[in-house]
Amino acid sequence: MSRLIRDRAGSTDAMLAAFGDEALLRAALRFEAGLARAQAEAGLIAAEDAEAIAAACVDLPDIEDLADAAAHAGTLAIPLVTLLRERLAANSPRAAALLHKGATSQDLADTALMLQARTGAALIRAETERLVSALTALTRAHAATPMLGRTLLQGALPITFGLKTAGWLQGVAGALARFEAETVAIQLQLGGATGSLAGLDGKAIEVAERLAAILGLPAPVTPWHARREGLAGLASALAILTGAVGKIAGDIALLAQNEVAEAFEPRVAGRGGSSAMAHKRNPTGCQTALTAAIRAPHLAATIVSALPQQHERGLGGWQAEGAVLADLFQLAHGALAAMAPVIEGLEVDTARMAANLAAAGVGTDTGESQTLVARALASLEKDR
Amino acid sequence: MSRLIRDRAGSTDAMLAAFGDEALLRAALRFEAGLARAQAEAGLIAAEDAEAIAAACVDLPDIEDLADAAAHAGTLAIPLVTLLRERLAANSPRAAALLHKGATSQDLADTALMLQARTGAALIRAETERLVSALTALTRAHAATPMLGRTLLQGALPITFGLKTAGWLQGVAGALARFEAETVAIQLQLGGATGSLAGLDGKAIEVAERLAAILGLPAPVTPWHARREGLAGLASALAILTGAVGKIAGDIALLAQNEVAEAFEPRVAGRGGSSAMAHKRNPTGCQTALTAAIRAPHLAATIVSALPQQHERGLGGWQAEGAVLADLFQLAHGALAAMAPVIEGLEVDTARMAANLAAAGVGTDTGESQTLVARALASLEKDR
Amino acid sequence: MSRLIRDRAGSTDAMLAAFGDEALLRAALRFEAGLARAQAEAGLIAAEDAEAIAAACVDLPDIEDLADAAAHAGTLAIPLVTLLRERLAANSPRAAALLHKGATSQDLADTALMLQARTGAALIRAETERLVSALTALTRAHAATPMLGRTLLQGALPITFGLKTAGWLQGVAGALARFEAETVAIQLQLGGATGSLAGLDGKAIEVAERLAAILGLPAPVTPWHARREGLAGLASALAILTGAVGKIAGDIALLAQNEVAEAFEPRVAGRGGSSAMAHKRNPTGCQTALTAAIRAPHLAATIVSALPQQHERGLGGWQAEGAVLADLFQLAHGALAAMAPVIEGLEVDTARMAANLAAAGVGTDTGESQTLVARALASLEKDR
Amino acid sequence: MSRLIRDRAGSTDAMLAAFGDEALLRAALRFEAGLARAQAEAGLIAAEDAEAIAAACVDLPDIEDLADAAAHAGTLAIPLVTLLRERLAANSPRAAALLHKGATSQDLADTALMLQARTGAALIRAETERLVSALTALTRAHAATPMLGRTLLQGALPITFGLKTAGWLQGVAGALARFEAETVAIQLQLGGATGSLAGLDGKAIEVAERLAAILGLPAPVTPWHARREGLAGLASALAILTGAVGKIAGDIALLAQNEVAEAFEPRVAGRGGSSAMAHKRNPTGCQTALTAAIRAPHLAATIVSALPQQHERGLGGWQAEGAVLADLFQLAHGALAAMAPVIEGLEVDTARMAANLAAAGVGTDTGESQTLVARALASLEKDR
Repeated sequence: MSRLIRDRAGSTDAMLAAFGDEALLRAALRFEAGLARAQAEAGLIAAEDAEAIAAACVDLPDIEDLADAAAHAGTLAIPLVTLLRERLAANSPRAAALLHKGATSQDLADTALMLQARTGAALIRAETERLVSALTALTRAHAATPMLGRTLLQGALPITFGLKTAGWLQGVAGALARFEAETVAIQLQLGGATGSLAGLDGKAIEVAERLAAILGLPAPVTPWHARREGLAGLASALAILTGAVGKIAGDIALLAQNEVAEAFEPRVAGRGGSSAMAHKRNPTGCQTALTAAIRAPHLAATIVSALPQQHERGLGGWQAEGAVLADLFQLAHGALAAMAPVIEGLEVDTARMAANLAAAGVGTDTGESQTLVARALASLEKDR
Repeated sequence: MSRLIRDRAGSTDAMLAAFGDEALLRAALRFEAGLARAQAEAGLIAAEDAEAIAAACVDLPDIEDLADAAAHAGTLAIPLVTLLRERLAANSPRAAALLHKGATSQDLADTALMLQARTGAALIRAETERLVSALTALTRAHAATPMLGRTLLQGALPITFGLKTAGWLQGVAGALARFEAETVAIQLQLGGATGSLAGLDGKAIEVAERLAAILGLPAPVTPWHARREGLAGLASALAILTGAVGKIAGDIALLAQNEVAEAFEPRVAGRGGSSAMAHKRNPTGCQTALTAAIRAPHLAATIVSALPQQHERGLGGWQAEGAVLADLFQLAHGALAAMAPVIEGLEVDTARMAANLAAAGVGTDTGESQTLVARALASLEKDR
Repeated sequence: MSRLIRDRAGSTDAMLAAFGDEALLRAALRFEAGLARAQAEAGLIAAEDAEAIAAACVDLPDIEDLADAAAHAGTLAIPLVTLLRERLAANSPRAAALLHKGATSQDLADTALMLQARTGAALIRAETERLVSALTALTRAHAATPMLGRTLLQGALPITFGLKTAGWLQGVAGALARFEAETVAIQLQLGGATGSLAGLDGKAIEVAERLAAILGLPAPVTPWHARREGLAGLASALAILTGAVGKIAGDIALLAQNEVAEAFEPRVAGRGGSSAMAHKRNPTGCQTALTAAIRAPHLAATIVSALPQQHERGLGGWQAEGAVLADLFQLAHGALAAMAPVIEGLEVDTARMAANLAAAGVGTDTGESQTLVARALASLEKDR
Repeated sequence: MSRLIRDRAGSTDAMLAAFGDEALLRAALRFEAGLARAQAEAGLIAAEDAEAIAAACVDLPDIEDLADAAAHAGTLAIPLVTLLRERLAANSPRAAALLHKGATSQDLADTALMLQARTGAALIRAETERLVSALTALTRAHAATPMLGRTLLQGALPITFGLKTAGWLQGVAGALARFEAETVAIQLQLGGATGSLAGLDGKAIEVAERLAAILGLPAPVTPWHARREGLAGLASALAILTGAVGKIAGDIALLAQNEVAEAFEPRVAGRGGSSAMAHKRNPTGCQTALTAAIRAPHLAATIVSALPQQHERGLGGWQAEGAVLADLFQLAHGALAAMAPVIEGLEVDTARMAANLAAAGVGTDTGESQTLVARALASLEKDR
């Protein structure tokens, strides 16, 4: 409903599409079609019934109507299954009865969310790698550029700018590695009514594995309806990645202060202006990343807070996760996409760095800064 | 972008509209039109220029385009003011130059948000009062109905069901009173570029007061660009109200367990079913409220975390508030609207209450339950 | 257990004492003694039994032993009551049996916490008023001192320093007013086993009122074992107050940057130094306040998250509140006590303010800054 | 200061000691002694000076005095270094000057915290493995025990109790694996004043590696003063582990309700009683774990929120981490230590499970429950 101050203000069109209604609905339809085909492959239902179901899953239903019905029912699966059965009723009544066989609402909800998350993870990965590349180049370029190191917001001793940016780089690279590790949570969900895989005539494991293959998602060892620590890890990793990007944004905003004036976001037409002051050059990319870094920890904590979900499938907890995880992917990608071009085009005033350093009167010994930069780059190179 | 698992799943159409893009844009246009008229009333600009500006603020711009431009610029005000000036350029070039005079981006953003919040607050108030009325009736009806009191999830001693529902009622009524007190934060914002009210030719206070009157918002003592504790209070109050509703939802879900079976959500066609189990009757209203109660505290904490905003207008902090405050209003209203009909139509099985109490073997002395119910009702009556 | 990096690092001796074990235990003993005396006054038990109980509540038990026993039992009340009964067994067996009559563990836990909170609230009030006084004086002194206003961390237009400090003052004063309003939650708890006030022979209301008078706490309309929105409001108010103080700390730390150099914490022997750099002057008071402002929102959110407590007394929720509320009082007081002397002794370099303003080249028109300062001061004066 | 309702109530003596003042101080002294010895090994200082320093680091200083001085100075390092220099001044003035050479306050603070965290991690690992063993045995014992599966807090279809406990087991095992991966953050910190490793005469890398070996901590690639995503990952992993334990506690508390009565905490003398109701058997272990699961997500979010720390060493952010990380270790260990004996001694009423299942009238087909249990156990076995 709100693009002006929520979605578009903090994310990218690509990620908004990945977690948009259409993507969700297409994922849900893929689940139902794939489930039927997997059952056909396993010999549980006839191939023609599976194809009838798959054919019914092609056209996108009206989203507004479905959203209202899902809110009324308390779950998307019920009105969607009803609607698909109506499509099948006339020509394939047998297929209509077989649709959604062995599945529960949360199977559809979780699998669809995971299909969205897979798309989202690829976007996060690509944009983070872009940022990593830009930070690597910046670090190489300024490995030996002297500047004033600052601690507790006070001038301290000399460092090189490359040492500062190497820290940014290591932070983002470390956060990306954690995120990659946590994407193992992006798995198929298929457990049936109570997660026992009943209702699939003893072929449940085979159906799950075939469905996983059809959808291109890993098959879990067992259903994970009420075991959500994987999602909590994924959410935490997104928040930490956003925080690592926010660290960069915060530092650049401080360096761009008029009185410091050592580094600036690139000038972009129509960006960073003020509606009241023509002379201003606001750090708009940093603003986007800092906003995300303020919000993300609380979103991740929401999913961690929801971990004690009741019994086989909980009430309220998992229903809170989808919207929150979407927000996290959107904010993280927004922050990355805001800062990658900032780093690519960062304006660095090395003369001003030198002047501020001289004014501080703390000498020019940058210690082992260059050695540390080399170590950081070598270590990251090795980890690739 | 996402109605299926985010907006519509957790809120109401009325509140989604209140915080939707169209409402935001209409509020922003009212701000610009009102500002011009207030300046005309104060003799700062010509009445015809004000009317030209107001006329340019009638048609709603294209939201998608504006959202993209606002994301690029880092603020909605810049592309909106540009667009309105284009509308005025041909026929009213003088008015074009006077548009937005003395205002800054955050003046528009905050005032528009407050206009939305005012609508939202009215919706919250009405739905909470509906819930309060239903709880009052339920409490009166069951003031003397004996049931097993439960502590630490174990059977304890007898109470009356009315004592339990009186607690629900007091919790919601107390949270509503706090929310009402915090709506004092819903004020006009007008400070100009740095909150000094420069650029209004010495008539700034008068302009602010006239604009406040035009918009129907209180005028603040001074601008509050970087002083956000009022918003933090409002956000906290919404989260607490949601928690008070969540308490009711949690209790009802526990009472509705098959083995307890003392109270149930009313049966509603198409609601609470299972996509896999026809016999089930899920507590769908409770689910909505519990989901909101899980999310809301983290949203409120986001706004409290953002309080230390830098200098005269901060970077990242206030830009995070709008979307989060909208989420809070939406979730709170969703929870209230889910639970009001649940309480209105609650099915209470007093025989089962009696049976469970008897099975616990803890006697039948309900202590001062009825006195306490009477005290609770009398106290709330007095506070009205 | 940890004073070095936790308690003492972030709070004051006075507040640590207020929420220390000894204060808690004394409060618990006052509860038991007061309860007996209130029952004697109401004619429920003999005066001599009440005095025997009160006498048994004088000596402080061993805290380590009691802490271990309370952790084992899951509640402080059980081992404490056992210990007091042992004290009474020999000479007053009848009094031993009457001890804790009509009360439950949570009655003792909540009332003791509220007695601690009352002490804590007085400390908060006093230190906030000290800060308000210092801010008022600072604002008056610099109502007309020109400086560069800064928005989005960029130089904007001129303001006066008094306008900036007036905003600090209004933020703290507003947060104090909210805190004062929320202290209404600091009430007696007495509900008995399930909050029905059973077990007091029909004189429960009278006993509660007499006990409230003895302890100097307001008597609640009804017990509030599972109705915690008052505590959530109190916690939120403390976090918001801490955030308002953190805003000041953040601004001063930015003003004290070497390149800005407009305002500094007062020099205090042994404070703000660096273990590695003799030339440094770290903003240590600001550090304490910022640390508190980072932590407090999450602590308040903990208590809000815990609102949906089950049935008549919940499992896990209220048991989480005591430690968290103590942390909040301690951090808020630590932040206030750190910043009050910073404001009292703030070193302001008006020449540097003028120089930075001139360097920005944005003129010298401070708009309505002085008018706004006067309005802010007058409004606060009126609210007193 | 507070054992009664904070430390002891939610943690274990072993973990409280690990994060107690004495452990912290011993770790700090080990850092200073080790630093001197590492410098001697690298040929930077004389061996006799190193030994003099090490000798001065043996006796534990007075903790109260040091806590006050550290709070005043804003960091522990300053008064500790001062005190150690006083010890050295008379007999080893040269060693006094060499103490803390090349190090900064945060080097000491971070390294000491990491030494504590290493101890804490070992405790977490051991207690989690104990819980994993108990859950494995419970799962094997009840792989085929039929019970009612419950979804959305409503009876659904049959499962086996082993399927439920296998989910608990997988959740805890998964969370332990994440925690183990995140312990990579437990590293030496040595960067000197601004993280450039200046002040160590070109032998900084060697000194760091020797110091790491002396302390038994991994040496980092580069200092990580302002790069805290590793700590954020560790904190998040602790919160997720606590949540996985909380899930078990929540389920057991629901199963132990009088009306369900399928599983109960073991009876332990003096535990789980009520101060008001002799018949009660409260789920005290579950209470401890649920309390921890309510608090932990907010604590982890605090550390994630603090990620954007300024420049080379930030103001307020890293100073917030120590106390919060200690709380997380303490709560996680408290939850684990509470639930391990609960699982080891869990009383399972299989007859009641069968009766409740029969009463639900949903048949007896437990689907693939036993296959899933076997898959879960085999998968965990393989991962060992």
